[in-house]
Amino acid sequence: SAEGGDDDDDDEFDEDRMTSLDERASKVEAKIKNISGRVMHVNSTLELLRSELDELKNELKQLEKEDATNEHVANARLVFDGAGPGGQLGGFVTPAKHSRFIKYLLGSAVNLVSRKTEERMRLKEEYVNFRETQTISYFLFPLVLFIWYNSKHSGHFFLQSQIAASKHSEFVETVLTASYPIALQAYFSWLLYFYTSLGLRENILKANGSNIRPWWIQHHYYSMAMALCVLTMDVDSPSCVTFIGRFLFFTFCQGIVMFLQNRYQRFRMYTRVAIGKASPMDVSATESGSRLKLLWPLLLTLQTMQLVFGCQVLLRWYKEFARNGKGLSEWQALVAGSLFVLMALGNFNATVMTFIRKRDY
Amino acid sequence: SAEGGDDDDDDEFDEDRMTSLDERASKVEAKIKNISGRVMHVNSTLELLRSELDELKNELKQLEKEDATNEHVANARLVFDGAGPGGQLGGFVTPAKHSRFIKYLLGSAVNLVSRKTEERMRLKEEYVNFRETQTISYFLFPLVLFIWYNSKHSGHFFLQSQIAASKHSEFVETVLTASYPIALQAYFSWLLYFYTSLGLRENILKANGSNIRPWWIQHHYYSMAMALCVLTMDVDSPSCVTFIGRFLFFTFCQGIVMFLQNRYQRFRMYTRVAIGKASPMDVSATESGSRLKLLWPLLLTLQTMQLVFGCQVLLRWYKEFARNGKGLSEWQALVAGSLFVLMALGNFNATVMTFIRKRDY
Ligand SMILES: CC(C)(COP(=O)(O)OP(=O)(O)OC[C@H]1O[C@@H](n2cnc3c(N)ncnc32)[C@H](O)[C@@H]1OP(=O)(O)O)[C@@H](O)C(=O)NCCC(=O)NCCS
Ligand SMILES: CC(C)(COP(=O)(O)OP(=O)(O)OC[C@H]1O[C@@H](n2cnc3c(N)ncnc32)[C@H](O)[C@@H]1OP(=O)(O)O)[C@@H](O)C(=O)NCCC(=O)NCCS
Repeated sequence: SAEGGDDDDDDEFDEDRMTSLDERASKVEAKIKNISGRVMHVNSTLELLRSELDELKNELKQLEKEDATNEHVANARLVFDGAGPGGQLGGFVTPAKHSRFIKYLLGSAVNLVSRKTEERMRLKEEYVNFRETQTISYFLFPLVLFIWYNSKHSGHFFLQSQIAASKHSEFVETVLTASYPIALQAYFSWLLYFYTSLGLRENILKANGSNIRPWWIQHHYYSMAMALCVLTMDVDSPSCVTFIGRFLFFTFCQGIVMFLQNRYQRFRMYTRVAIGKASPMDVSATESGSRLKLLWPLLLTLQTMQLVFGCQVLLRWYKEFARNGKGLSEWQALVAGSLFVLMALGNFNATVMTFIRKRDY
Repeated sequence: SAEGGDDDDDDEFDEDRMTSLDERASKVEAKIKNISGRVMHVNSTLELLRSELDELKNELKQLEKEDATNEHVANARLVFDGAGPGGQLGGFVTPAKHSRFIKYLLGSAVNLVSRKTEERMRLKEEYVNFRETQTISYFLFPLVLFIWYNSKHSGHFFLQSQIAASKHSEFVETVLTASYPIALQAYFSWLLYFYTSLGLRENILKANGSNIRPWWIQHHYYSMAMALCVLTMDVDSPSCVTFIGRFLFFTFCQGIVMFLQNRYQRFRMYTRVAIGKASPMDVSATESGSRLKLLWPLLLTLQTMQLVFGCQVLLRWYKEFARNGKGLSEWQALVAGSLFVLMALGNFNATVMTFIRKRDY
């Protein structure tokens, strides 16, 4: 019958398809087996490179200690940092152990190394971009909250005179009163996120050859602790009232300085790429000295402000809470104040050390 | 003079040292240049492998859709998953784009792929270890806090009868009262850390070939939101009083189930390694079915409890806060309740889907 004929056709067609699938499949199988062999080969090549490079890196460091100005030593360093055909070689040595921060959050077995030079450059560029975008929030959040806080404590909310005329004034006031703590806590949560992300990203940069000072990473850990501490505050608690105005004012000022800091860092990054320095992560100091002239005094002013605010909060905690037996329940003032003092001193130290090093050039 | 002679000797010695330094340095320079060339070669080999593998992977997927039981198709899959001499090949294809979570925290340019099979196995093992260690805190924290909470709400702290006899009783009570919120907030902070770390680690596992369902990762994001939400609660607020007892009781029960879950996951990991399955990240279902028989009802009970608690809190928020105009200031009850309901439903769905899939084997 016609139907039988159709079936026959189908069967033949099916068989054809099966053979061709079988053929295609065995081709793919053969190719994948071939690739697996090549992968084994690449893996052992990489291992060999690693052990050779580990040794050479140590020798190079030793030579640099003996005489860093020797032409061959300097050349070897340039090649290691990316002047050769292979680009940066830092990704091919045995990676340094992860910091404790990375161990706690990502574990110690994770690989964070980008081997290729372009990937490493993208990492740095992304970090700078991230800082720049987030600085806007860093600046706007405390600005809005500071105005809100002040108008609340002067007894009336901003815009209230206009609103009072309307018949919804009571409703609006309720909403404004209830949203202030929410806005504040949203800000603290964002801060926690921002500092955590910076801490993670800077550790990743470090694993990819950046020369960032350990303190600049550590001070983000302290900032995280600070954000967590203020997050646990009850907005109407005495601790909060003592601390929050100063905190908002300080972070607002810091936001402004961060704009300048970011511009300086982006400028450095571009200059380094433009003048074709071997490594994008390499410390190049001279070219940007003049940009720093504005930054130094601002940073020192900020750090002084941080120190003074920290001491004020600590003093107040001691006088009003600790002596009153409320020291424990107002622990946030103690912790936040101490962290402020600690960070002010650490930032001051790291800034001065950087200044001294750069002056030598 | 004798001194002159000494100087001469020194000079000669210096010169000798310089020559040998120069020699050593030029050797190191030559070696590093050689390595740089080899690195360039390896980089291009890797790139070639990547483009070939990308194509083969697509072909393989296509073939699997047509007929996954074909011998060559199955073999090709086995080799891709690690049965060949090169081990797992998944680390050599173009990596998938990072999830938004990774982008926000680590950035999109970071490399998280471990290429070598052993490194990938270490990742998984570390994840299981991490879960196991942290489960102890997950279980102990709410246990202690729940007892503390109940003794506080029944008007006296535990151990108080013993303490009352001593002359320091008042001091001890003050300290206990003041430390309860601190302990609670320490717990919430730890929870936030735990969930963040799980979210990060699971994303990293996924980038390294794990078959984990997206929901199990996502539900850690919701858990993070929950931890953040309870962290902002004032301990004496009505929201907190409504929510916290249930929350502690639930997480305590969850801690117990997590012990079993961890044992099951470790067993699965070992079995897979022991029976020499191609990929340690591969889904192998049959061998552990019996262990799951205990887990299914416990998980469903837990999820029902989560749903009920969530609904209770939502109902209470609606009746006592929303209708009283305090809905906004007690937003934590609304958010925490909703998150509980959401997670209960999502967990239920994912568990049932896994059950159905596993039943087919
Ligand atoms: C002082 C300062 C301007 C010097 O910047 P610099 O010229 O880039 O410093 P260095 O030459 O030592 O930089 C070495 C590396 O560390 C990085 N780095 C320096 N300071 C950094 C910081 N605060 N955060 C992140 N990275 C930083 C640089 O980008 C460079 O990275 P690279 O090796 O990947 O190229 C800078 O450290 C700074 O702004 N510090 C102040 C921060 C501060 O005090 N903040 C709180 C305000 S009170
Ligand atoms: C249901 C369940 C036991 C199934 O586990 P399973 O047999 O490992 O599931 P699958 O076979 O789908 O696993 C696939 C992969 O996802 C991983 N995985 C599954 N569930 C996971 C979870 N909840 N968390 C982390 N990873 C999980 C597995 O380890 C496996 O990883 P691999 O590919 O690297 O080997 C498990 O998902 C589970 O315990 N879920 C309940 C979680 C829960 O509800 N928690 C809240 C309590 S209400």
